[in-house]
Amino acid sequence: MSVNTFGRLFRFTTWGESHGPAIGAVVDGCPPGIALAETDIQPWLDKRRPGTSRFTTQRREPDLVRILSGVFEGRTTGTPISLMIENVDQRSKDYSEVARAYRPGHADYAYDAKYGFRDPRGGGRSSARETASRVAAGAVARLVIPQVRIRAWVEAIGGDAVDPANFDDVQIDGNPFFCPDAAAAGRWEVLVDSARKAGSSLGAVVMCEATGVPAGWGTPLYAKLDAELAAACMSINAVKGVEIGDGFAAATLSGETNADAMRPGADGPEFLSNHAGGIAGGIATGQPIRVRVAFKPTSSILTPVATITRSGEATDIATRGRHDPCVGIRGVPVVEAMMALVLADQSLLHRGQIG
Amino acid sequence: MSVNTFGRLFRFTTWGESHGPAIGAVVDGCPPGIALAETDIQPWLDKRRPGTSRFTTQRREPDLVRILSGVFEGRTTGTPISLMIENVDQRSKDYSEVARAYRPGHADYAYDAKYGFRDPRGGGRSSARETASRVAAGAVARLVIPQVRIRAWVEAIGGDAVDPANFDDVQIDGNPFFCPDAAAAGRWEVLVDSARKAGSSLGAVVMCEATGVPAGWGTPLYAKLDAELAAACMSINAVKGVEIGDGFAAATLSGETNADAMRPGADGPEFLSNHAGGIAGGIATGQPIRVRVAFKPTSSILTPVATITRSGEATDIATRGRHDPCVGIRGVPVVEAMMALVLADQSLLHRGQIG
Amino acid sequence: MSVNTFGRLFRFTTWGESHGPAIGAVVDGCPPGIALAETDIQPWLDKRRPGTSRFTTQRREPDLVRILSGVFEGRTTGTPISLMIENVDQRSKDYSEVARAYRPGHADYAYDAKYGFRDPRGGGRSSARETASRVAAGAVARLVIPQVRIRAWVEAIGGDAVDPANFDDVQIDGNPFFCPDAAAAGRWEVLVDSARKAGSSLGAVVMCEATGVPAGWGTPLYAKLDAELAAACMSINAVKGVEIGDGFAAATLSGETNADAMRPGADGPEFLSNHAGGIAGGIATGQPIRVRVAFKPTSSILTPVATITRSGEATDIATRGRHDPCVGIRGVPVVEAMMALVLADQSLLHRGQIG
Amino acid sequence: MSVNTFGRLFRFTTWGESHGPAIGAVVDGCPPGIALAETDIQPWLDKRRPGTSRFTTQRREPDLVRILSGVFEGRTTGTPISLMIENVDQRSKDYSEVARAYRPGHADYAYDAKYGFRDPRGGGRSSARETASRVAAGAVARLVIPQVRIRAWVEAIGGDAVDPANFDDVQIDGNPFFCPDAAAAGRWEVLVDSARKAGSSLGAVVMCEATGVPAGWGTPLYAKLDAELAAACMSINAVKGVEIGDGFAAATLSGETNADAMRPGADGPEFLSNHAGGIAGGIATGQPIRVRVAFKPTSSILTPVATITRSGEATDIATRGRHDPCVGIRGVPVVEAMMALVLADQSLLHRGQIG
Repeated sequence: MSVNTFGRLFRFTTWGESHGPAIGAVVDGCPPGIALAETDIQPWLDKRRPGTSRFTTQRREPDLVRILSGVFEGRTTGTPISLMIENVDQRSKDYSEVARAYRPGHADYAYDAKYGFRDPRGGGRSSARETASRVAAGAVARLVIPQVRIRAWVEAIGGDAVDPANFDDVQIDGNPFFCPDAAAAGRWEVLVDSARKAGSSLGAVVMCEATGVPAGWGTPLYAKLDAELAAACMSINAVKGVEIGDGFAAATLSGETNADAMRPGADGPEFLSNHAGGIAGGIATGQPIRVRVAFKPTSSILTPVATITRSGEATDIATRGRHDPCVGIRGVPVVEAMMALVLADQSLLHRGQIG
Repeated sequence: MSVNTFGRLFRFTTWGESHGPAIGAVVDGCPPGIALAETDIQPWLDKRRPGTSRFTTQRREPDLVRILSGVFEGRTTGTPISLMIENVDQRSKDYSEVARAYRPGHADYAYDAKYGFRDPRGGGRSSARETASRVAAGAVARLVIPQVRIRAWVEAIGGDAVDPANFDDVQIDGNPFFCPDAAAAGRWEVLVDSARKAGSSLGAVVMCEATGVPAGWGTPLYAKLDAELAAACMSINAVKGVEIGDGFAAATLSGETNADAMRPGADGPEFLSNHAGGIAGGIATGQPIRVRVAFKPTSSILTPVATITRSGEATDIATRGRHDPCVGIRGVPVVEAMMALVLADQSLLHRGQIG
Repeated sequence: MSVNTFGRLFRFTTWGESHGPAIGAVVDGCPPGIALAETDIQPWLDKRRPGTSRFTTQRREPDLVRILSGVFEGRTTGTPISLMIENVDQRSKDYSEVARAYRPGHADYAYDAKYGFRDPRGGGRSSARETASRVAAGAVARLVIPQVRIRAWVEAIGGDAVDPANFDDVQIDGNPFFCPDAAAAGRWEVLVDSARKAGSSLGAVVMCEATGVPAGWGTPLYAKLDAELAAACMSINAVKGVEIGDGFAAATLSGETNADAMRPGADGPEFLSNHAGGIAGGIATGQPIRVRVAFKPTSSILTPVATITRSGEATDIATRGRHDPCVGIRGVPVVEAMMALVLADQSLLHRGQIG
Repeated sequence: MSVNTFGRLFRFTTWGESHGPAIGAVVDGCPPGIALAETDIQPWLDKRRPGTSRFTTQRREPDLVRILSGVFEGRTTGTPISLMIENVDQRSKDYSEVARAYRPGHADYAYDAKYGFRDPRGGGRSSARETASRVAAGAVARLVIPQVRIRAWVEAIGGDAVDPANFDDVQIDGNPFFCPDAAAAGRWEVLVDSARKAGSSLGAVVMCEATGVPAGWGTPLYAKLDAELAAACMSINAVKGVEIGDGFAAATLSGETNADAMRPGADGPEFLSNHAGGIAGGIATGQPIRVRVAFKPTSSILTPVATITRSGEATDIATRGRHDPCVGIRGVPVVEAMMALVLADQSLLHRGQIG
């Protein structure tokens, strides 16, 4: 089976390969009457767009989105919104090397094991290029939940973390790393540059926060808000871990420390801490939703790695071509998009059951 | 909305509250002709059963399962399998305290915010008692994938981790902590006892491994094997984090270190490491599937915590009653069950598309 | 695959066999705060209950429903509602005949072809007894849409139709046929009696009408209100045809005759006819929803029919045991239940997208 | 909610409006390794294409399909197949009349009631143009089940039926009506012409048969093969009735007449009749699957009909523009496509559960 749809009421389906003519998403279940134009989507795609600094892949894609359906006279009609992004810079280079041998850490071997063959051009369907479709769909999702503010940033690269004391919201969009700590951004410039020059790559941790989510959104048990977020984030290429609130650190706390004590507030309860990351029992508490996501280092690297060929012979592979030295950086707008998509869906689910 | 069903082809739906007459699961989509009796399910429930040591809740539940449908002359018929477990020890104690004020860290406030009211007896639907239904369904799932071996253990309690050098498979079922390290089990006895006596609680980390999963099971993109496992585990009560393979540690590695190099093996490729936890691009590689899960400390504790009442006044709450001092311990059979359920589902999905 | 769940937001899952210990339904997605007790469900089950006249099967089942979860202090909590009905009169008679040879028109052969074997006792899962679970779930659905009035009746038995001129609402519950025409009810008494005595059976047509459905409920395209009703009704045992509004007769009309002309009304448009059966483009128009359903004659008959054994030899089969001479009669509460279930689901879906 | 996806394992999602830039379908879940090119799809689209005779709408659309993803070196990869058809002849005519008043029988009023507004150009999303996307997806489905032969034909127009004695397979593609009876085709030429000239329209009945479906495909209970076919067909624009096998006529038969007697055959049972239309208990029996579908007359007609405006005033409406005088004719390839889509899905579902 192949499942390329995500969501329950607000759903999107993505399609397309790295080196095909185009990629896209069909967004279904969007409420009617929402003002929507390409200009609402393009800024988020621009944020994810490759080739904007030397710290991302040098593939040049304008990533211009077209709305093909679902909008009439500038407003959503409630019918499916088809979004298409043409591939422009899919170089017709020789891909015989990748077709011949498996890149360790990449999906090459697993795809062959499943399907019997695969589209090796640029990773085919397993390329991170698919995440552009998510970002486009996520831009629509944001408009469904205008009361929610979503922002993500990089918290660590290659194990070098930001200093919370230095956190400055304004910094995030001021450097090529979505880094909220100017000092860390400076260090990362050296770190990523040296990994890139060494033909290596680095992992990263992305933090995402959503504020303005009303208490009550979410569902017990198997579409819990945290379970949906976990699935949403783990489905992003290169992600290997997801935490809600304190995550693994919560496993080291005592019950009384971990409990987010409550006091009467002006507008509902005031919480004295947010270890829970804004979710209890699968349902939003009204506190900020906090999700942390671990990206492994890019699998496609110039450094040769021991592998086997499709016919089972030992060889080494060095992946030439254009790749992100740290795929987690461009993961920031993707994690934001998945947060928006989950929350838009849960907002409609909540309204459906509760009114 | 309320979603109490999990799975795509092999699906289960759970129902029941902590203090209602019974809980249960309906398993749908099971292949026909599989030998199934209550005795195939009971041992797993016994493993999760409360009251077996002083390190778990003292509620006394035999947790005897009955098969009400879907089996004829000892074999599954391919129709829904209804499993029921009667609640026996749901004490008719006074629950006015929990009804009156919110337990911080618990789902009390979120349920009220969503539904307007809630069943406060023993946590109602948000009680960890629901996980017995998963364990029963998981026992059926195991029979669908007999080639797969699943085992989980506790890797750390309250931040005190096992020493990998001491890992001994046989130990796991030999102590009340599902601990593979005899030395750690000894330390935990003191640790958990002292938390219990202090009216506190502890978090835990559970590790689960599935061997024998064929390369190719899994799906790109939105039902990736890792995304499904993340959703499955994050849906368990008290879970706050999920890692596949190296998880967050992968974010600190270089690309060449993280890559699981391959060499020709006797039966397909031989991998020289397993940083990926057996999954690439959402699809199994044939290596052991490895998932790590963080459980927060139990929210219901005797130590008083600042909170508010339903009517919004400040108060303190101390949760009397019977509770696990470390809910992660009994999480071991639950994580195993969710692993089995995801893999059984994916095995059918794979067969459906590929044959 | 086996799919025993119906619905999208308001969903139910049924389980159980004719001769197992019990049957039941799990209703998920029900809004919270609705007053619900067994007494809200029992009357509908009583309407479907066998053994109430000589025109239905003589199996004696009290069909007493128990609510096992999802209700607290008399109100739905928003969590799954587990409904169970014990089988009481599952005679332990010899079923070797049905196990040995296939009843033509019944699901026996098809089940064997699919699953390799089957539970032959009383038809196992393919028994019309499953419809009791639907009626129980449907009783809950009615409470979700109190503004809607649903009523069904038998329009024809064995080709003998009611006279619309004789239609009298009060008659429907005044005879054992749910017949709105006293004269027809008199004729049917003779007709069904003679079929029963001859060891034969008869088909029937059931008409169902829902009034009070607001314009706008429904969905384009693949969960159209009419498409969902068609699936819901065609899933009932013995149903072979479904019509919306004029149905097949619409295919004989001209465009101007079939068009339901509109005039300004006091409260939205006034329609001058209802050929459409209250649905246009998959969406309710505010007119009464009208669905007509064809039931084939009961397949289990005393008259011997040519068939083959499981091992492929020619034989004749005469089905002894207790069977409805006209299964369509007891189809009336089942069709009503499916109408309620579809409408409750669509009401939540509409609210989810539109608010 | 808006549901534009159909299917469970083999799924398709359609998008696009009558007068937008394009329409399309995303096919997900297709098995890998199937030879697929535009030339496999185009012939079916050509069969449905408008403007091929004076008996269909005069809109000129080449309906050329492009495959944008999911195929590599001429074979399906198992990933989503994006199909796009550009709209070429979407005349920029004045649509103020349709925007101002509701066409009785059309979805205009219902869409406004649901969404608050609508795209009135050519019917927007409710246009029969959407069915081109289904035909394209259906062409892919056919390749998944090469053992099955599907063919449909028109059985009656405006109440004038074919004579079964005249049935000639070869005729079906030899006249503009997909009519298997040459004599009827001659009569229909006059009938449809005169309706067209009178500014009226006609309904039709389409019959579809699938041979080669193995016994065992299908599912009890809520995704029964017949229930899925009913939903699939009822979701087609203008359809008001669906029958399986004898359908409503079965309700007039006695049990012994309706029973399809069985005799030992060379290859499984030989059935002596096919009243059941090849389905028992929701599962295929191995006999031909037979589905009959009623299409109402086209709602858009030149003859004025009483209606109201959006602001609620009485008026008459005559729909100028290009419309099919009998929309059921071009329904033939659409019904075939839906049959193929349901069967492809059920074939994968069966393989998933049973192997």
